[in-house]
Amino acid sequence: MRQSQLFTKTRKEAPADETSKNAQFLIRAGFINKEMAGVYTLLPLGFSVVNKIKKIVNEEMNALGSQEILMSTIQPKEVWEVTDRWDSEKVDVWFKSILKNGTEIGFGWSHEEPITNMLKSHISSYVDLPVYVHQFQTKLRNEERAKSGVMRGREFVMKDMYSYARDEKEHMDFYNKTIDSYKRVFDRLGLGNATYVTTASGGVFSDKFSHEFQTICEAGEDNIYVHKDGKMALNEEVFNDKTLLDLGVSKEDFEFKKAAEIGNIFTFGTKKCEEIGLYFTDKDGNKKPVYLGSYGIGITRVMGVIAEVFSDNKGLVWPKEVSPFNVHLVRLGNSDASLAFADRLYTELESKGVEVLYDDRDLRPGEKFADSDLIGIPVRFVVSDKTVAENKIEVKYRTSAEAELLSETDALKIL
Amino acid sequence: MRQSQLFTKTRKEAPADETSKNAQFLIRAGFINKEMAGVYTLLPLGFSVVNKIKKIVNEEMNALGSQEILMSTIQPKEVWEVTDRWDSEKVDVWFKSILKNGTEIGFGWSHEEPITNMLKSHISSYVDLPVYVHQFQTKLRNEERAKSGVMRGREFVMKDMYSYARDEKEHMDFYNKTIDSYKRVFDRLGLGNATYVTTASGGVFSDKFSHEFQTICEAGEDNIYVHKDGKMALNEEVFNDKTLLDLGVSKEDFEFKKAAEIGNIFTFGTKKCEEIGLYFTDKDGNKKPVYLGSYGIGITRVMGVIAEVFSDNKGLVWPKEVSPFNVHLVRLGNSDASLAFADRLYTELESKGVEVLYDDRDLRPGEKFADSDLIGIPVRFVVSDKTVAENKIEVKYRTSAEAELLSETDALKIL
Repeated sequence: MRQSQLFTKTRKEAPADETSKNAQFLIRAGFINKEMAGVYTLLPLGFSVVNKIKKIVNEEMNALGSQEILMSTIQPKEVWEVTDRWDSEKVDVWFKSILKNGTEIGFGWSHEEPITNMLKSHISSYVDLPVYVHQFQTKLRNEERAKSGVMRGREFVMKDMYSYARDEKEHMDFYNKTIDSYKRVFDRLGLGNATYVTTASGGVFSDKFSHEFQTICEAGEDNIYVHKDGKMALNEEVFNDKTLLDLGVSKEDFEFKKAAEIGNIFTFGTKKCEEIGLYFTDKDGNKKPVYLGSYGIGITRVMGVIAEVFSDNKGLVWPKEVSPFNVHLVRLGNSDASLAFADRLYTELESKGVEVLYDDRDLRPGEKFADSDLIGIPVRFVVSDKTVAENKIEVKYRTSAEAELLSETDALKIL
Repeated sequence: MRQSQLFTKTRKEAPADETSKNAQFLIRAGFINKEMAGVYTLLPLGFSVVNKIKKIVNEEMNALGSQEILMSTIQPKEVWEVTDRWDSEKVDVWFKSILKNGTEIGFGWSHEEPITNMLKSHISSYVDLPVYVHQFQTKLRNEERAKSGVMRGREFVMKDMYSYARDEKEHMDFYNKTIDSYKRVFDRLGLGNATYVTTASGGVFSDKFSHEFQTICEAGEDNIYVHKDGKMALNEEVFNDKTLLDLGVSKEDFEFKKAAEIGNIFTFGTKKCEEIGLYFTDKDGNKKPVYLGSYGIGITRVMGVIAEVFSDNKGLVWPKEVSPFNVHLVRLGNSDASLAFADRLYTELESKGVEVLYDDRDLRPGEKFADSDLIGIPVRFVVSDKTVAENKIEVKYRTSAEAELLSETDALKIL
């Protein structure tokens, strides 16, 4: 797209009350707009990044055999009273409101209860199981503090998946398959190297447990301990003598790190389905409760964590898989020669299916480069009178300090 | 997809309190789940239909040069107080709640105010205009009654587009282009023949006006008058002597019809932008207010209207553009021959990119056909011992009473 047509403008300053790096850069570069503390709008660039994250996540969830749905935001209280999660004293992130007839309603902060309740209409026999469903849903949470930009919003996009299984083996097989699937997701998102699967609660060898996917990140709100082998990490709450003894590892081999939780998976065993009344009849005609697992990835949070982890002092640095565009084509000057070259190159790249942001604006080179660094598309092509005279393109990666002059053929090869 | 894997089951009865035909069929066929009055979940089949509607609408909005964004659901009151639309006495569909610090917030029922307010950061000069933006957003409205299924929900997906223009000509040119664009949208959705552009308010020749896209539909909540030429229609509120005189038409030539509003477009002139403070500097350095137009299409409502307009006593009848699958492949019996034929055909169709729902379940033919009619995929292929013996496929359109035996080559041609 031509940058002159993109309605968002970059800005020099973020709102004064915005302390987090991710929100500062994302706002300044025009990816998001701050509506109020913890509430952000996705502008075209941010909308594109979020869609790319969703696409990768969706492909991996489909590969697990999950079916996509979209649950409602508005929640009737009856469904949540059954499991004692309606009371705001017990769940302190509810937003609630009332219908005109006085009926109290809530706004979805999670969806185990309504999904399990809905499935009572569709699951009755062992042949109906297993069932895996997921959604990309805007969650609303009445967070006390909202100070980490899109890393902890009052409104955010989450992928939540739920597994319903006949027995513990089927349940745990899927749980473990999802761990592998999540690793692929975070590898594809460019966060694989910085992300650890941590045992988060319940102890390593206990029945009730959960796992978190924690990305090393100074702005993260979690504390984890990473083993020097680089493969094992433990959340602070399970980093104790008993766990260390169970694992046969020594305290001294762990290093403390700040981290951001970008995914979590946990098992409800059969408890939730028993409470809600989701049972099935097995092969022998016995009534049995269903096993439930719950698997989240914070989609907008991932955007924030990527912005934290990969940015530098000039701005954002997108991994290529989630960059809003494949290449930033920057034209310097308005001479006929550079205009003709850049326009033709733009058309040609688009015709090949390359996503191009074409800076066709009438600005000084310094302003264009500053915008380009701030927006953070991984590859930049510069076309100027100088490059046209040599019939070359100046190619620069966002992550490298130096540019190089390449022929068009060579430049296209790197995309 | 194999129907044995689709987690939703059809059901004989809709919930007793569900009076609308669209919700009855959509629930019975497993497209949606009723969470409470006016609040529905999209199950895989319904999710697919909604995505197909969104894709068509999005293509046409992109063709108008609109950029996609996603505004927040949570709304700060300050933005709405400026235009006097915060007070629940004045706008009676607000859902409101409060933050932990006591701050009142609202949940978005429309987005003119926040979008216009956000654009103050991006529009300052005539070179920044025009701007066209759209979103697919879940609106929340505290409707007094919710009795028309997905045609009037308390929570629904809407496409809302907003145009920001420099002057009246630019504004009206886009307004009129959007009328044509909407006609293409509804043609592509299969609703073109049943849908009229009506003048809805403000009179035909007045400055302030709006247009609605009304689909003839017994379950509709609106009353319109359609001219016998079939091209002109008027909403009830403007069907008066003055309008008829202005248009030079006679009252007797109009017929009363019930209709459902699936789209609406209206102009705010410069009023809204003046209130919110969105101005630009023109070529001569003068400060001027921006013209605002607003353009809605009820995405989930369209699904409901299609369900009302095209269904018969057996169930849903999807236009092919929005059907969740291109073809319903129904296998009768479990003989090795029919199993081999149907499995191979399924694989082959999928490899050609055809979206197939393959009924591989072990049920009686009567049950399978009843489900197939209820779900309403436009084309059905039946494979049985009888068809396999003749090396044919039994092909039946959902809209026709008779089936015909075709060779595989001929059957594939119709997809």
